[in-house]
Amino acid sequence: MTKSYAAQSETSGMAPHTIERREPRADDVAIDILYCGVCHTDIHYVQNDWGGTLYPVVPGHEIIGRVTQVGADVKDYKEGDIVGVGCMVDSCRSCEACDEGLEQYCLNGMVPTYNGEDKHDGSITYGGYSENVVVSDRFVVRVPDSLDPAKSAPLLCAGITTYSPLRHYGVKKGDKVGVIGMGGLGHMGVKFAKAMGAEVTLFTRSESKVKEAKKQGADHVVISTDEAQMEAVAETFDFMLDTVPVQHDLNPYLNCLKFDGTHILVGLLEPVDPALQAGQLVLKRRVLAGSLIGGMPETQEMLDFCGEHGIHCDVEMLDIKNINDAFERMKKGDVKYRFVIDMDTLKQSA
Amino acid sequence: MTKSYAAQSETSGMAPHTIERREPRADDVAIDILYCGVCHTDIHYVQNDWGGTLYPVVPGHEIIGRVTQVGADVKDYKEGDIVGVGCMVDSCRSCEACDEGLEQYCLNGMVPTYNGEDKHDGSITYGGYSENVVVSDRFVVRVPDSLDPAKSAPLLCAGITTYSPLRHYGVKKGDKVGVIGMGGLGHMGVKFAKAMGAEVTLFTRSESKVKEAKKQGADHVVISTDEAQMEAVAETFDFMLDTVPVQHDLNPYLNCLKFDGTHILVGLLEPVDPALQAGQLVLKRRVLAGSLIGGMPETQEMLDFCGEHGIHCDVEMLDIKNINDAFERMKKGDVKYRFVIDMDTLKQSA
Repeated sequence: MTKSYAAQSETSGMAPHTIERREPRADDVAIDILYCGVCHTDIHYVQNDWGGTLYPVVPGHEIIGRVTQVGADVKDYKEGDIVGVGCMVDSCRSCEACDEGLEQYCLNGMVPTYNGEDKHDGSITYGGYSENVVVSDRFVVRVPDSLDPAKSAPLLCAGITTYSPLRHYGVKKGDKVGVIGMGGLGHMGVKFAKAMGAEVTLFTRSESKVKEAKKQGADHVVISTDEAQMEAVAETFDFMLDTVPVQHDLNPYLNCLKFDGTHILVGLLEPVDPALQAGQLVLKRRVLAGSLIGGMPETQEMLDFCGEHGIHCDVEMLDIKNINDAFERMKKGDVKYRFVIDMDTLKQSA
Repeated sequence: MTKSYAAQSETSGMAPHTIERREPRADDVAIDILYCGVCHTDIHYVQNDWGGTLYPVVPGHEIIGRVTQVGADVKDYKEGDIVGVGCMVDSCRSCEACDEGLEQYCLNGMVPTYNGEDKHDGSITYGGYSENVVVSDRFVVRVPDSLDPAKSAPLLCAGITTYSPLRHYGVKKGDKVGVIGMGGLGHMGVKFAKAMGAEVTLFTRSESKVKEAKKQGADHVVISTDEAQMEAVAETFDFMLDTVPVQHDLNPYLNCLKFDGTHILVGLLEPVDPALQAGQLVLKRRVLAGSLIGGMPETQEMLDFCGEHGIHCDVEMLDIKNINDAFERMKKGDVKYRFVIDMDTLKQSA
């Protein structure tokens, strides 16, 4: 039996809970969880904001751990390896998307790390707020030795979500990249775009973030509520990476793109409000694109890139017993930039 | 003095009018106009729907004519050549966009064929509802011998507007392309996509257009108001070419795209209403793109492509004295698929 934290209902908050993990199958890797990042998505599932939460729900899809056991067919991992697990733990493995290593777009539906249904035994998946997890080797990635495991946990979601579109759209040396929003995703976007050689501008509503943005590597900061500052950068960007997870006006940002520029949404899933001005796209051949996490080969590539460039997420370590307070602070944007649960605090709890 | 048709005010309608054309400059081509297509944009300018109309306005940006004179520096055209002029007659010629042959996105502003301001003498440009026109050679294209000049006129706007994005996004043999709308642009989109080797589906609200769409080359027709038909083609298209010039719900069409699919807007300039669902982009890495006419090298390429593939616009020939009636019919969608003015009817008028 495995100790974990779960929400039992929309209003219960997180509390200790016991689950059972499956015996490793031939392609499985059993992982002792060391750290788990806390993603805003976890809060949405705990509160059933999007509907469809299956209680009890054990959240957590930014998992770093140590391999304790591998199935007979597993070649790439062995006991003692430091590995990561992100937002997915399975997919059909045979569709066009899976063939391209883009399991997140699996035509038959990927299996999320928690609140999903196992394709083999129909059991409900439980996430990383837990002592351990068992995952098929295709959905496990290796953490380079040069990375700090605790600060790497959020790379599995916040990291890959921002890395993937920058790579997909070919951001390169000299490109002008705007990053909108300075949260868990935004600060990673700044680091990645900078490491790819881009000239990076952070767009934020808050004067208070200017200094911090520059510390993170931004070359420039634009206060997005200042019309004169926005006008000064009109039609100057190749890419905008938009990490804002709530409704906002896209038009002023689109206006900052050159002709042929690309605005990438990674946070917004809701209707676009205020309305998108179609002319902002048509008159300048601009592109509005979306992107969802990243595929498994790309997730490994991202970790290797982080290892090579010394990129980590900025984190605040968390004792799991304070998870409910952490949720409240996250709702107010009060974290720089990601909480990471030290799973020793779970293992050592009564 | 040059006979033409102009609107003198928002409500005057089109009527005979005399203008003066400039003497050809060193890089100019003087053209005797044979045919001019009637674009919906002409109506918007005549009625001042978008504001900014400078009266008198002589519309017309789908011009086919015969060269009568060339300036001293003109190498590519000579008296007697059959040539075309589209939506632009000048640009800065030195910006990043112009350098790429994308004069329509000129950073300093392209000069439209009518209602624009000449960059040299500040005069107002007058369009193709006229006996003749004088245009700089960079903005003149050659009409291949194999094309029917009358049926080629609308290629200069309706043609290039649909050809350009299909080429830009690399539509190729075997791709599944949806074309939304079956008007002047839509029927050209079907022909181009088919000639590029795509499997083409026309989306229309009207059962009455099914037979006609197949005649134009569509492999399939989907009635977009029929939910079952829309559901049957969900997630199956690589590209959607959206030629609808009025507000409409993009979400059902986005849902027809595969992951990584691209929805191209060429007609809509207004706010997107109903609201765009951002999740339609993010969850499948789809792209919403815009495109505006095409650059001059690409316009020549398009005409050559039409010459090679025997592609024309379907037209209804028009006596210029009936232009006001033609506008009324166009407002009702009652034309297959473009009116083209036979300019002899102007030259022979009293």
